[in-house]
Amino acid sequence: MIRVAIIGASGYTGAESIKILLGHSEAELTYLTAIPAECGAVEDVFPQFRGRCNLPIEPLDLDKLAGLADVALCCLPHKVSMGFVPKLLEAGLKVIDFSADYRLKDVPVYEKFYAVKHTDTDNLARAVFGLPELFREQIKDADLIANPGCFPTGALLAIAPLLKEGLIELDSIIVNAVTGSSGAGKNPSSKFHFPNMNENLFAYGIGTHRHMPEMEQVAGEMAGLSVQILFQPHVGAFDRGICSTVYSQPKGKIGTDELRRLYGDFYRAEPFVQIRADAPAVKDVAGTNYCHIFPTCVKGRIVSFSVIDNLVKGASGQAVQNMNILFGLEETLGLK
Amino acid sequence: MIRVAIIGASGYTGAESIKILLGHSEAELTYLTAIPAECGAVEDVFPQFRGRCNLPIEPLDLDKLAGLADVALCCLPHKVSMGFVPKLLEAGLKVIDFSADYRLKDVPVYEKFYAVKHTDTDNLARAVFGLPELFREQIKDADLIANPGCFPTGALLAIAPLLKEGLIELDSIIVNAVTGSSGAGKNPSSKFHFPNMNENLFAYGIGTHRHMPEMEQVAGEMAGLSVQILFQPHVGAFDRGICSTVYSQPKGKIGTDELRRLYGDFYRAEPFVQIRADAPAVKDVAGTNYCHIFPTCVKGRIVSFSVIDNLVKGASGQAVQNMNILFGLEETLGLK
Amino acid sequence: MIRVAIIGASGYTGAESIKILLGHSEAELTYLTAIPAECGAVEDVFPQFRGRCNLPIEPLDLDKLAGLADVALCCLPHKVSMGFVPKLLEAGLKVIDFSADYRLKDVPVYEKFYAVKHTDTDNLARAVFGLPELFREQIKDADLIANPGCFPTGALLAIAPLLKEGLIELDSIIVNAVTGSSGAGKNPSSKFHFPNMNENLFAYGIGTHRHMPEMEQVAGEMAGLSVQILFQPHVGAFDRGICSTVYSQPKGKIGTDELRRLYGDFYRAEPFVQIRADAPAVKDVAGTNYCHIFPTCVKGRIVSFSVIDNLVKGASGQAVQNMNILFGLEETLGLK
Amino acid sequence: MIRVAIIGASGYTGAESIKILLGHSEAELTYLTAIPAECGAVEDVFPQFRGRCNLPIEPLDLDKLAGLADVALCCLPHKVSMGFVPKLLEAGLKVIDFSADYRLKDVPVYEKFYAVKHTDTDNLARAVFGLPELFREQIKDADLIANPGCFPTGALLAIAPLLKEGLIELDSIIVNAVTGSSGAGKNPSSKFHFPNMNENLFAYGIGTHRHMPEMEQVAGEMAGLSVQILFQPHVGAFDRGICSTVYSQPKGKIGTDELRRLYGDFYRAEPFVQIRADAPAVKDVAGTNYCHIFPTCVKGRIVSFSVIDNLVKGASGQAVQNMNILFGLEETLGLK
Repeated sequence: MIRVAIIGASGYTGAESIKILLGHSEAELTYLTAIPAECGAVEDVFPQFRGRCNLPIEPLDLDKLAGLADVALCCLPHKVSMGFVPKLLEAGLKVIDFSADYRLKDVPVYEKFYAVKHTDTDNLARAVFGLPELFREQIKDADLIANPGCFPTGALLAIAPLLKEGLIELDSIIVNAVTGSSGAGKNPSSKFHFPNMNENLFAYGIGTHRHMPEMEQVAGEMAGLSVQILFQPHVGAFDRGICSTVYSQPKGKIGTDELRRLYGDFYRAEPFVQIRADAPAVKDVAGTNYCHIFPTCVKGRIVSFSVIDNLVKGASGQAVQNMNILFGLEETLGLK
Repeated sequence: MIRVAIIGASGYTGAESIKILLGHSEAELTYLTAIPAECGAVEDVFPQFRGRCNLPIEPLDLDKLAGLADVALCCLPHKVSMGFVPKLLEAGLKVIDFSADYRLKDVPVYEKFYAVKHTDTDNLARAVFGLPELFREQIKDADLIANPGCFPTGALLAIAPLLKEGLIELDSIIVNAVTGSSGAGKNPSSKFHFPNMNENLFAYGIGTHRHMPEMEQVAGEMAGLSVQILFQPHVGAFDRGICSTVYSQPKGKIGTDELRRLYGDFYRAEPFVQIRADAPAVKDVAGTNYCHIFPTCVKGRIVSFSVIDNLVKGASGQAVQNMNILFGLEETLGLK
Repeated sequence: MIRVAIIGASGYTGAESIKILLGHSEAELTYLTAIPAECGAVEDVFPQFRGRCNLPIEPLDLDKLAGLADVALCCLPHKVSMGFVPKLLEAGLKVIDFSADYRLKDVPVYEKFYAVKHTDTDNLARAVFGLPELFREQIKDADLIANPGCFPTGALLAIAPLLKEGLIELDSIIVNAVTGSSGAGKNPSSKFHFPNMNENLFAYGIGTHRHMPEMEQVAGEMAGLSVQILFQPHVGAFDRGICSTVYSQPKGKIGTDELRRLYGDFYRAEPFVQIRADAPAVKDVAGTNYCHIFPTCVKGRIVSFSVIDNLVKGASGQAVQNMNILFGLEETLGLK
Repeated sequence: MIRVAIIGASGYTGAESIKILLGHSEAELTYLTAIPAECGAVEDVFPQFRGRCNLPIEPLDLDKLAGLADVALCCLPHKVSMGFVPKLLEAGLKVIDFSADYRLKDVPVYEKFYAVKHTDTDNLARAVFGLPELFREQIKDADLIANPGCFPTGALLAIAPLLKEGLIELDSIIVNAVTGSSGAGKNPSSKFHFPNMNENLFAYGIGTHRHMPEMEQVAGEMAGLSVQILFQPHVGAFDRGICSTVYSQPKGKIGTDELRRLYGDFYRAEPFVQIRADAPAVKDVAGTNYCHIFPTCVKGRIVSFSVIDNLVKGASGQAVQNMNILFGLEETLGLK
């Protein structure tokens, strides 16, 4: 049994990770930590785990952790994470980090978008971007995985085949996405107060969303050239899911049948990516680690639709998928 | 034109009052106030009023108010309101107060449920409970109206005919109610954070809700005897409305037809109360000042269903209805 | 008082029209019609009008209509409407038609997208497209108004200033929109069954939505040249509203400040269009006839956000706005 | 591996059963059936199973079934089920039936509430009511389990300890419940059309709901005496869950501490029942097989709150729990 610690277990991705691991046959939760104010019996923090998980959530003790776990899912916030990850690695654990701290390879870009100095550039250099469909081989041998952002996961899977095959103009990509509200995290705020958010939908992060450079970096790796992406997120009145609608300009003529063949071939061996012949709905993948994609041509442009669950394929499920790869387990364990 | 000031205009009942009064042909908004932190252009506080209302929301200035308004809708919170109402009255305005401060005639009961000393018992004594269907005559001549709580409005209208006619056991009443989330007010909290409240429903205020003594007081006035009510509120994942399901034990035999006649007669002249022959839905009255009631007999008990919009008939709409009565206007003005 | 008939009053736009007209001080409802299966007391069809409207909904009788009304809001479906509009005009009424039958001036385009022969091309030729912000002068003298589609209303208002000033590439426009579920109409279907639609969001009408040629026609009139629009609608789990995110390529350099000045000037005298400095939310305009727009520049492209209520500014409210113009009333009557 | 057939797999309880069994380590789906109109690749009926389940949904072939499965989850509707269950039993399978056809032991009561003649009274006589917390011993040896209704599951678990201990007046019980909309099943209807059901809540089945006699029968078995229950269901705008608020009159004095001890003892060994010290929320159990209960005393009455997921503990999860018991597996397999 793989022994798993969750560092920063008191947030939504912590809860989702606990839920997935409770049903994983080859891994067991051994240690849950949070800041002192959010510690306690797991059922006091998350009533849904009453009777299902007996671990307390306790303040992180690195010595204790070293003897208790083989891998840490590090669910700490951006900027905080890079203060802890070096210690988790030194304690001998493999680390799957949910924050952005190890995703952006270009330090100045990180420092611009996150407005903080990067304090762990050594580990940053060897971190692997944990999108298994694109980087499975590197993940196998890594000890530090940068678990991707939710929007980049959905958007990149939607256009990776196009970029890899060099089929589209690299400055033509527009990612229009709508996420569920769990993406905002668990801290109450006016925008996400129920009577404000309910029956609502709006754009945010206009021109400034931090997932934009992350998309551009990985898209650039796929294409082998610099890629410009206009990413526009919106948030809607539902708990889970991201619907990404990605517009791009093909270099030459391409038809929908050809697109479907291309995507089908590209993702043929992927257990979690499904190519559809119709528009996928957020609810088709809610609560699962799947990504449904529908690529098509409209009026001379390519439009690629993808849906994922932002907390599963966009966070905790993908982390467990990465963990399964890291430890040589069947990749779908706990995620069926 | 009646000139209306809203004191405490920056909350949900303030916004609903502004909205109603913008469409009122015989009243005009002249003054909006709030605590300094919530002042500003009305459109900065409530984007929905952009281009519709040019008044600023400003700190209360009693001298200014005196010259500007004939009536104040006082939307301040419980306990705060009684600090301001005497000054509003002294400034020569009629006052319709949304708080509980002038509803409970029994000072010790108020002080127990609200955990504060009552500081304006003089005005309390002459305040009129502003439920027009039961107290219209007293309202006409009042200068201080205690606008009823949302739950008491729905529950009392559902059983007033039974109490007035002495048809039920006075210790048998159970009020089971579900309110929409706007009842929680505009301050963000964990329970009402969208990802927590969405897809959710739960009971609260078990045995302790402050609307219980309010219901009992008015029910007692109707019955002419002391009444015990077991009131159990719940909150659901919708913006507006209260569905009250009121169970009571008839003293003798009574049939559904007889009940319907009784209710029909009791509310015959009431513009805002509609007696239904089937279960009313919250959405039938959302956004309106109406109360739909369906009284019926089940297995020897009487079950009375009522629905209202908690922000309209349960707050701002009822306040405007009271205002119309106070000033001798057609009672439905602005509320059709 | 303007006497108003609603033809096809039993659907959502019928109900919304009734609601608006009940609060209109210079118009009165005099006649409501529907197909026989949907006739009855208005409160049996729409419980929310119980006690508020005493008209029955009855089968259309043209002779009766002629003596009863000055104007008809014709809420019949596409293809059905053109069978009735000529008779309504012959009966001497002005007609505001909600269907697409009189919107598309190019008959072959209509016949392609609606898969039916157009049977009233004479009236089509003289119908005026009822978007007051763009065609107010023509509306004043019309007797047949083609009330615009909901998506075209939101999208066209978002980019009209750009088109009018010739600032953007005419083949670069992408309209990505999310509508609330009331847009689907009142007939139950599997996709809109609550347990399917709730917590969901998906794209539809890919490359085929009938509002695409409507947008292109009016955009072309604005630009004075043929315009290509890639329109991609989505539907989300909320009742009302459309959020349109419109991407376009400027011909030259343009800044956000310049854009805001341009939009501010273009819509300066418009009561229902508000230019924002931040992203508008669907809930800012729900239940109102307003359109909030935020134009900005992102990474070399122009992104224009607009929100409307699909049933009000996108249907019944705009119809009443047109009616007010037709009859020389204050344009905002009933819509404040 | 237990081989499982799902008869009537094309509805919501079918889908939920498939989902649970895909994650069950000791059971495998071998056969899925439905009426011909609802057959096809499972992913065409339920897009969420694309790539997760390769079985087709096909018309029932009893000969084929006999060789393929050890147990049938029979998800057919009331009245239809009793036409098939005898054949499933004859084919040598154990049967867990989701319909009401084998729940009500009193044939005339069944025939009154379901308005049909019972055609399989022999099997009815030996069917066991599948509420494991109350009837585990009988379930172990049964070959036909009547899986309980969703409302009876939540309500009976909430009051079983009171009935078993003879603590309450047997004619005093009122069950006020609110269910999510998935309880309505998958067939579209006007009431559950999204724009009607969204933001709504209403009572239904007043005095006539078929789960009332089911509750009374089992409550009577618990009490050893006839029990009268006034059951009033409501439906709210959420997908999953039932919140039951059960009022009863204690025979003597009882305190909240005593109640909690009683419930704690009664359910001590139960893996899926959790006794809370505060009001449970529907979302605490959504997606799980758990029932959270909070018993308390208010104004001389006992109020017991319980929450379950109507599709899991109220249907498919409970069926799998029963299956686990029937086959001697760990009771929580697939349900953790």
